[in-house]
Amino acid sequence: MVDILHRVGVETPTTEKVYDALTTVEGLAGWWTDDTKGSADLGGVLEFRFPAGGFDMEVVELRPSERVVWRVVGGPEEWIGTTIDWQLRRDGDYTIVLFRHQGWREPVEFMHHCSTKWGTYLMSLKSLVETGKGAPAPHDVRVSDWD
Amino acid sequence: MVDILHRVGVETPTTEKVYDALTTVEGLAGWWTDDTKGSADLGGVLEFRFPAGGFDMEVVELRPSERVVWRVVGGPEEWIGTTIDWQLRRDGDYTIVLFRHQGWREPVEFMHHCSTKWGTYLMSLKSLVETGKGAPAPHDVRVSDWD
Repeated sequence: MVDILHRVGVETPTTEKVYDALTTVEGLAGWWTDDTKGSADLGGVLEFRFPAGGFDMEVVELRPSERVVWRVVGGPEEWIGTTIDWQLRRDGDYTIVLFRHQGWREPVEFMHHCSTKWGTYLMSLKSLVETGKGAPAPHDVRVSDWD
Repeated sequence: MVDILHRVGVETPTTEKVYDALTTVEGLAGWWTDDTKGSADLGGVLEFRFPAGGFDMEVVELRPSERVVWRVVGGPEEWIGTTIDWQLRRDGDYTIVLFRHQGWREPVEFMHHCSTKWGTYLMSLKSLVETGKGAPAPHDVRVSDWD
């Protein structure tokens, strides 16, 4: 089992805005994809759609301003059953976001792509909270021919 | 053992320019850090310096336009003995770069940071080859308080 790991520091004095951006449909649409629907409640399923496909995520843990965990219940075969774990904490003027997409069976080439792409989306989340403007799909940063 | 993985597609019709950006001091200074010195030959040691510290990399494999491998011989404790493996291949109008920083002993928080930071530097490499201008340190994209 191999994981995708990331860490960004968002300049915001409490973890609240980052937590909101991970736990509301409006917030998620502001940095990941414009086309976000579904339920962001515990046990709900969020539906993220992109020009090339999409992901359905069951919300399996919500600890206000501390942690969010999703389980992938729909999407590319490699993603099904993997989990996406967001941990937040305050550190001075920053909210630190520790990200882990875990449970990949093999380090396939698609996983390399997803790692880079997650990095750009985390920068989009950071920008959304810091400036009010993220870069969600279809206005996202292109990393390759696979975008 | 856990790895950092990334993949970018650089719009360039042959792998040559990407290979040059990984195997010459001038090329490396164009996307990773302005302050790059040392020998880029097989068995040589490249010295990369940043405002907060630096890395020394022994060049352990050079396969023109296909593969470059560095072993970390100086730098933060977590990096010593890890390897950085670059694989290149042509795919239509793109040069695909598969990146792996392998041999981390533990998925420490610093590894999360390095994963995100490598992603931004790979985008800098892509930009250098595509536009002639990268974003090497100290002009690099800031991802957190640790930059």
